[in-house]
Formats: sequence, structure tokens, C-alpha cells
Amino acid sequence: MKKLLIVLSLGLSLFATAGELLPSWNEGKSKTNIINYVKAVTDKKSADFIVKQDRIAVFDNDGTLWSEQPAYFQFFFAVDRVKALASRHPEWKTEQPFKAVLEDDMKTVIASGKEGLLKLIMATHTGMSDEEFDAIVIEWIKTAKHPTKNVHYSELVFQPMLELLDYMRANGFKTFIVSGGGIDFMRPWASEVYGVPSNQIIGSEIEVKYEDKKIVRVPKVRFIDDKEGKPVGIHYHIGQRPVAAFGNSDGDFAMMEYTEANKKYKTFQLYVHHTDDKREWAYDRKSHIGQLDKGLDYGTEHNWTIVDMKKDWKVIYPFEMKK
Amino acid sequence: MKKLLIVLSLGLSLFATAGELLPSWNEGKSKTNIINYVKAVTDKKSADFIVKQDRIAVFDNDGTLWSEQPAYFQFFFAVDRVKALASRHPEWKTEQPFKAVLEDDMKTVIASGKEGLLKLIMATHTGMSDEEFDAIVIEWIKTAKHPTKNVHYSELVFQPMLELLDYMRANGFKTFIVSGGGIDFMRPWASEVYGVPSNQIIGSEIEVKYEDKKIVRVPKVRFIDDKEGKPVGIHYHIGQRPVAAFGNSDGDFAMMEYTEANKKYKTFQLYVHHTDDKREWAYDRKSHIGQLDKGLDYGTEHNWTIVDMKKDWKVIYPFEMKK
Repeated sequence: MKKLLIVLSLGLSLFATAGELLPSWNEGKSKTNIINYVKAVTDKKSADFIVKQDRIAVFDNDGTLWSEQPAYFQFFFAVDRVKALASRHPEWKTEQPFKAVLEDDMKTVIASGKEGLLKLIMATHTGMSDEEFDAIVIEWIKTAKHPTKNVHYSELVFQPMLELLDYMRANGFKTFIVSGGGIDFMRPWASEVYGVPSNQIIGSEIEVKYEDKKIVRVPKVRFIDDKEGKPVGIHYHIGQRPVAAFGNSDGDFAMMEYTEANKKYKTFQLYVHHTDDKREWAYDRKSHIGQLDKGLDYGTEHNWTIVDMKKDWKVIYPFEMKK
Repeated sequence: MKKLLIVLSLGLSLFATAGELLPSWNEGKSKTNIINYVKAVTDKKSADFIVKQDRIAVFDNDGTLWSEQPAYFQFFFAVDRVKALASRHPEWKTEQPFKAVLEDDMKTVIASGKEGLLKLIMATHTGMSDEEFDAIVIEWIKTAKHPTKNVHYSELVFQPMLELLDYMRANGFKTFIVSGGGIDFMRPWASEVYGVPSNQIIGSEIEVKYEDKKIVRVPKVRFIDDKEGKPVGIHYHIGQRPVAAFGNSDGDFAMMEYTEANKKYKTFQLYVHHTDDKREWAYDRKSHIGQLDKGLDYGTEHNWTIVDMKKDWKVIYPFEMKK
């Protein structure tokens, strides 16, 4: 991850003219909307001023801060773990969906549906202490590579969103990640990559118990931080209604609607719309991952900021800045 | 609460000589232990140095940051709410434990045990939005008074612990509250009184659901943040093993043991021992509230800091400093 940070800072110094805000964003409505909002709510003389302790900004992760195609990256983690653990589980040779994973038969894996995915998650994400799981995730994020992009997964974060996170924080916002992904899958690396402390990362949760001075991961789902779960996760972890929300799919809609319904303050909503089939992927209304349908209509009607990745972003990934 | 803050700052300026650390603490082993620990782990040249992002300190609330006698203050809140809501619930005139509450028959209320207490909590803490509940708590904390001390409950916080919280933060520690009390009962006032942001307050949880753009409180317990629940709550909300833990009862033991078992860093544990039957209350091994038995033996053996409130603290409450 150090490597990534070096790339980032190198990139920034090449691209940005001194003091330029959001240097990887092309001039246009999206960039203007962001800057106008931040200026309005941080100017003490503005009617829209928000006191610092109420500047709560929530960001989805998959598809908003990093890519999510051709499958959620946590799914690739589970697949890699099944392969790594296969020698200890001879029964997987005949048991689905493990058999399909070991045979690289992704069609059958996907056909196994939610139940199959849950089996993979339970077999690979539980049965060890939290500290053991952290070490496994860190090792994977350092070494595993994306099947088509052939770079480390943590290199597939969005440079413009990293700049946006920094920009919000520089203006007194507290930034939170609110993801459908696993809270314990994100925390070991996301804290460093996004500059968000571990306690500001919220996600889906596996049950844990305290045993022998350790936290032990139990094969049971505790909480799904998706759709209507997102405002619920925000309630438990933050305890305040946000003023700004950033997402990319209908799974983020409830969180964005909840933010918009903040009666006390001017709010801001932004959807990252995946429109770039060359540099990233193009998908929305009919995608099996990151479907953006209802949210696209509602957001357009409500003047939410809809980022057109192809037009609005100079670069997608930090590594493009080296070129 | 503004009044409280003024009292605090007045008090501090009267008591403290310039730059004196922890001015309400008498010189002695407890004060020395705290300062020696903080100096050791914040000195870059020390072998015990802890990087800033790992300086996680967890504090129990009831009995550690404020008083908890003759009953938990949240219990008095529930009692006051039952009385306020009684006219809408004629059935409470004959239904226990409500009948006993309305007749000020605390013996019968207490005899109703956990089940009775749960009934009181569900009837008074649920069935409204989170924002409505916040407003009720704020109104109560501003107006209600303690039955024997005759001051507002938020005036019964421990002045030496407020100084300790400030001292830890001034040295780069992130301070968290990890309480058996209700997370949503604490957040509306504790954030301001203790200087701890809402998202760093952890406690027991009622189920909530997202409905009609609001968080609605459902009459069901979701999580009890006590005993072995405290390390579990720390895992979900913080995601890091703390280095310093502060408590006052066996209910805090698991959290302190979990902290002590941090293999990476030098750790610190402190028990507030209630020894002052004049200024506060004296109780420990046999108390029905805040029992400190196992922890007192273990902590003494393990060189944990055991604060003798009577000897170690110049004042207990901020309002004593006006005298």
C-alpha cells in the first residue's frame, strides 16, 4: 500500500497546479456542484452554514470508491480463500458451490445464488479470531491481482473520489464509509487507502463472540448494511443524520434519501454513474451488480449530482497518472 | 449544559496552577501511574511509543464518568417517562411494574427484576423516531433532578475524569465511551458533556428500522453492551483493540482484560473504586449496582490502577469547585 501512496502523491504533483481543487475532475456541472455545496455550508456568513460536528459525509465503497466488476472484489477474495483452503477440505471436491469454485466454473458459482455465496463467505470469513482474519485480508490485498486489469485490487480505487474525500475532510467534514461489503474485510486496508479511521468504516457484519481474551468470528450473519440497512447502520454507528451522501447504485438509495430528508441542513447527494466502458466499465439499469435504475430517475428529478465517469473524470485510477 | 461548562471552566481556573496536569487529582500513585503511562507511550524515543492511530482509550460511563446510585440514572429517566405517559395508559394503574412506579413503590419495581425493567424500558424508549427520542432525552437531562443530590444528572459527572478525558485527548488518544447503558440515551447529551463525538459513544442497543425516511425505534433489544458484550461492541464500533481502559465494576472486566491482552503495545487499566460515602457513595464487592469484586482482586494482582475516590480526588463533581 505504500507503493500506492507514492503513486498518489507523485500523480498529484504532476497533475495539480498549485491550489487547484479536485484536479482529476474536468470542469463541469459535477465539479461545480461539489465545490458550491462545500463553500455554501462552510462559510460562516452563509445561511446554509453547518457547524463542524454536524458535517457528516457518508460514502458507499463498491462502485463508488473502487471498481466492482466483473464481480465484487470481496467475492474474488472468497474464491481465492476457497482455493487456498481446499487441501484441508477434501469434501469440497464434490460439494457445491465449492466444487465449481475449484473448477473455475463461475457460471455455476453465480447460479448458486445468495445461498451459495453465503456458504462461500461463511467457509472463508469465519472460524478464526479477528486478528487472524485481518492478517489474511492484508496478505491478500497486498498480493492478489484483478483477473482482467492485472493490478492489485487496492489500485482500482477512483482517483477523483480520493481527491473528493480529502477535499471534504479539508473542509471539516467527517468522512464515513457505509458499504454493503464486510466491515472486517474493509477495515484492514481501507483505513489507509481512503484515510478513513477504522471506527468510521461501516459494513455488513458477521457475528462475533468474546472468548479467551479474543474476538472470534462465528459463522452467522449479524447485519446486512445494504438498502434500508444503510440508514440503520448509520444510526448505530454514527448516531447523526448525514448531510452529504455518495453512492452508485439503488443499494445506496435509502442512505441518500435519508440524507436528503435532513430537515436541519442543506444536503448533497452524488451518484457515480458508470459510463466508461474503455477505462472502467459501463453499466446501470440492467446490471446484475451495482444496478442503478430507480436512483437514476429519482436523482435526476431531485437535482442530485450524477457523475458521468467518462466525461467528468480525467483519470479513473491513480496508476493512470504515471503515464 | 452551558451552565455546566461555565462551572467547569471557572472551577478549572480557580484550582489549576498554570500547566498543572489533572488538577483535581491529589498527588499519589494513581495520578503518577496515569501520567507515567501517557508520557511513556507518546514519547517518540520511548520503546513503548504508540502511533497516534492506535491510541484508543475506552471509558465505561455509569460509575466511571458519572454516579450510578441509588440506581442507574437511565432507570430514573424510565420512571419519569412512565409518570409522564401515565394519562395515556390507564391500564398501568393495575399492571406491574407500572403500578409500582406510579405509586413510588420502588421495592416492588426492583423486585420485578430484569423482566420488569425491560418492560419499563420498552414502554418508554421505543415506538417513536430516533429524533423524537433525542428530544425527550434532552428535555429530561435539562430539567430532571437527582432524588437525593437535588442537582441535574449531568452535574453528577466526575470532575477528575473530565480532566482525564481531556488529558488523554490532548495527548492524541481517541476517547470512546463503552457503556452498558443505552447508546441512544447517552448520545444526545454525553457528546457535549464529555467532549466525545456521537460516533465514539457505544452502548446497549434497541432494534430500529428505516421507514418513511426516518429511523423508528422498535420494542426489541438488539445488543447488550455489558460484560463479554463490551469487547464485542468495541469490535463492531472501533475495530481495533484498545490500549487503555477505564471502568468501575465487574461489568467492565472483560473490556479491561481484552485491553490488557493487547500484544502490540504497553497498556493501561484503571478502576474507579467508590470509597467516599460522604461526597459520593461507598460500595464494591456486595453492591447490587456496580459490583466490583473479581475485578478488584484481579486488578490489584495485575498492578492495574485502583483509584481511591476518597483519597485520590480533591473534588468529585464540578459544582464543588464553586464553593
